[in-house]
Amino acid sequence: MKRAVCLLSGGMDSAVSTAEALHAGFEVHALSFDYGQRHSIELEAARRVAAHLRVRDHRIVKLDLRAIGGSALTSAIEVPKDRSEEAIGASVPVTYVPARNLIFLSFALALAETIQAHTIYLGVNAIDYSGYPDCRQEFLDAFERVAEKATAAGAERGVRFSIAAPLVQLDKRGIVLRARELGVDLGLTHTCYDPVQHRACGRCDACRLRLRGFEQAGLIDPVEYL
Amino acid sequence: MKRAVCLLSGGMDSAVSTAEALHAGFEVHALSFDYGQRHSIELEAARRVAAHLRVRDHRIVKLDLRAIGGSALTSAIEVPKDRSEEAIGASVPVTYVPARNLIFLSFALALAETIQAHTIYLGVNAIDYSGYPDCRQEFLDAFERVAEKATAAGAERGVRFSIAAPLVQLDKRGIVLRARELGVDLGLTHTCYDPVQHRACGRCDACRLRLRGFEQAGLIDPVEYL
Repeated sequence: MKRAVCLLSGGMDSAVSTAEALHAGFEVHALSFDYGQRHSIELEAARRVAAHLRVRDHRIVKLDLRAIGGSALTSAIEVPKDRSEEAIGASVPVTYVPARNLIFLSFALALAETIQAHTIYLGVNAIDYSGYPDCRQEFLDAFERVAEKATAAGAERGVRFSIAAPLVQLDKRGIVLRARELGVDLGLTHTCYDPVQHRACGRCDACRLRLRGFEQAGLIDPVEYL
Repeated sequence: MKRAVCLLSGGMDSAVSTAEALHAGFEVHALSFDYGQRHSIELEAARRVAAHLRVRDHRIVKLDLRAIGGSALTSAIEVPKDRSEEAIGASVPVTYVPARNLIFLSFALALAETIQAHTIYLGVNAIDYSGYPDCRQEFLDAFERVAEKATAAGAERGVRFSIAAPLVQLDKRGIVLRARELGVDLGLTHTCYDPVQHRACGRCDACRLRLRGFEQAGLIDPVEYL
């Protein structure tokens, strides 16, 4: 059976992306990171989603991005609230973690080489990418090229690793609708940058994009808001 | 003052590479990894070298490559001993850690973006590279291209990150001689894959390449061997 490594954050996008890998017939090896997020609630969501989707295995790699600094997700910068759609899309947000997807994909590649998987799934989407440069197709293309040079499998045995980003052309509405088609329970996922006692704030950029997606899909978001 | 991030492993090569960055006039921010190496002796050596070279700061990022598996440096595979030069150079060794330099460079890039450094030094060398694919120039070139796409600095502000590998064309003899020119005390460094009570084995691939380098340079290796 073909294997895929699937990056699983606990959010809506990576849950749907992982479901796409299963739908495509892959044996799924999910990978999450414990990187000093403000909220362990994300990892709890990743565990719930992995169990719900019945992936083959789920590994959590501990790493410490706090030693690097530079982001509201890992250090003590205020998370912006109630921003307009224009403001959300216009610039790199303070919640940007430097080179995060590159770091995560590098670990996914290491695991892929170890278990002889040639495909890595991740849930980035370029439409509602909220200013993150490492959610764009051209980043993914550049990663495929470096993966070929970075590994023994690529450099010695000619293996080509492919990065599958099945949501890259979808907006949040499309992702919500695709989740329903694939039977993914989005009530298990977690999106909010600033939750209070397991309830989403409804006001950070991530919550606003998610809520708009459900609204445009004509569906109710099953997670609890403040 | 221009800043550089320098990957510092505690080995001979990264010590000389870091000294090159200082010699070129950079303010040096050294970066090491605590990745579940068999021997914390490597990190002790990195700390000694950082102090010896008087770098501006030295960060140690904890990460757990053991969750990934697949290498004699992080799991329980036997380290090969007494191999011929032909055998050392001919194939990817069991001490290969999948995608390791890609992972390390990704963290270095995150730090570079955070502190506004545009140059990353690492001590790879392609002559005595002992079969590691991610020590080759073409890997470094591919990394420069992905770095441009992976970061806000690159994608939004046109910053180009450059990967400096000043030893890439040197053999171990050349590195030993360059260390002397730059005043690097190689007695502080650690190379062995399988040390016993802080003494190098003299028989693993890394020790053999190192000892041959000193021999060809006409110098005595100051570290203690079994």
